[in-house]
Amino acid sequence: MRGKLLYEGKAKQVFQSAENEQELVLSYKNDATAFNGKKKASFEGKGRYNNLISTHIFEYLQEQGISSHFIKPLSETEQLVKKTTIVPLEVVVRNVAAGSITRRLGIPEKTVFQPVLTELYYKDDSLDDPIINDAHALLLTDVNEEELAFIKQAALEVNQHLQTFFDRVGLQLVDFKLEFGRDQDGSILLSDEISPDTCRLWDKENGGKMDKDVFREDLGSLIDVYDAILNRLEAAK
Amino acid sequence: MRGKLLYEGKAKQVFQSAENEQELVLSYKNDATAFNGKKKASFEGKGRYNNLISTHIFEYLQEQGISSHFIKPLSETEQLVKKTTIVPLEVVVRNVAAGSITRRLGIPEKTVFQPVLTELYYKDDSLDDPIINDAHALLLTDVNEEELAFIKQAALEVNQHLQTFFDRVGLQLVDFKLEFGRDQDGSILLSDEISPDTCRLWDKENGGKMDKDVFREDLGSLIDVYDAILNRLEAAK
Repeated sequence: MRGKLLYEGKAKQVFQSAENEQELVLSYKNDATAFNGKKKASFEGKGRYNNLISTHIFEYLQEQGISSHFIKPLSETEQLVKKTTIVPLEVVVRNVAAGSITRRLGIPEKTVFQPVLTELYYKDDSLDDPIINDAHALLLTDVNEEELAFIKQAALEVNQHLQTFFDRVGLQLVDFKLEFGRDQDGSILLSDEISPDTCRLWDKENGGKMDKDVFREDLGSLIDVYDAILNRLEAAK
Repeated sequence: MRGKLLYEGKAKQVFQSAENEQELVLSYKNDATAFNGKKKASFEGKGRYNNLISTHIFEYLQEQGISSHFIKPLSETEQLVKKTTIVPLEVVVRNVAAGSITRRLGIPEKTVFQPVLTELYYKDDSLDDPIINDAHALLLTDVNEEELAFIKQAALEVNQHLQTFFDRVGLQLVDFKLEFGRDQDGSILLSDEISPDTCRLWDKENGGKMDKDVFREDLGSLIDVYDAILNRLEAAK
């Protein structure tokens, strides 16, 4: 299925599909990185967990009417997706304060955001993905005002669905990051991955961290945590 | 005229007016600070220039129908203003790229912003005045959505007037910072100072920097530059 390697990111390789010019094969790697690549490690099996958990999430979102680049899983570590050109924005939705916002704005961890907080970051490794406002997003990317409003609205809808999705398996959705791409027709589409690498998830019972913070903060075995999430999702299917 | 010292900032002291409970006396100091106070110096006469130039600016804005806290100058270094509670936002308007935005977002200096770019910063020294978006501003301050829209609109109107004001004396308004306060009636009012400490001004003839960047970047005599601006403003009156 794989054609030419188009791009290699920190956590995924992106291949042209050999069968269809308008499709890509995402291949999840075993690498974990944090702090914009400053901390790195590799975990046997991690690519498989990211692929399978991301597949569960995109399939659920599609059942809820949220269209995305996701087509189908191809193997334990690969997904087939529609080809998009990624918009260089990271859209972060925060239900509860954790991570960078606690340091940047002095907001205590666990503060509940009411309304839910949406942030935009400019996807540029050389600039350390700086936080930006709407006007910067219009200046720095090719999205127009209407498309930006669509992206922000879509992120809030995804939040509602993901809260339900994770609540069913005993997890609180603290925050998450989305990326969007532009397909061949010029439409904006939910893209990239959604997984415990891109979401903060806290165990509803004991508050334990069940996401990439386990790696960021050296809290234990990342693989055990990702395995627990996959098992809960399989059991709830 | 001066009553009790209410607050001492990096560049000004704020006194209660002895005559009127609803008025304050701003006393401009000779201190210059940059990089959030990391660089400091004192320049004989600087307080006078800031006060007199700020007075010219607020008087012009009032002639153009922009209401503000400004009432009148009291002395060479003091202004009488309406008492407001400062909203902890710095509203930055950028016509041309210079300073922090060139480093933060990799935008080349002198890039013209079309449309004009507005940014919000959260006024908190301990956090280094971080850049924020509209949702953060609503979360971190007591302004509501309507008031925030008013603040951003007012900043753009001030920009139009200040561009004309400085153009008349051969200066290009590159960017500037405004602060707003809430008066006793709860209304939002343009406050603080507007001066070459808070504006970037480039000489239209030779592009020379005529603002606090002279101090930030050790480009020459800050006092000579402020004196030149005051002379141009007096001559144009």
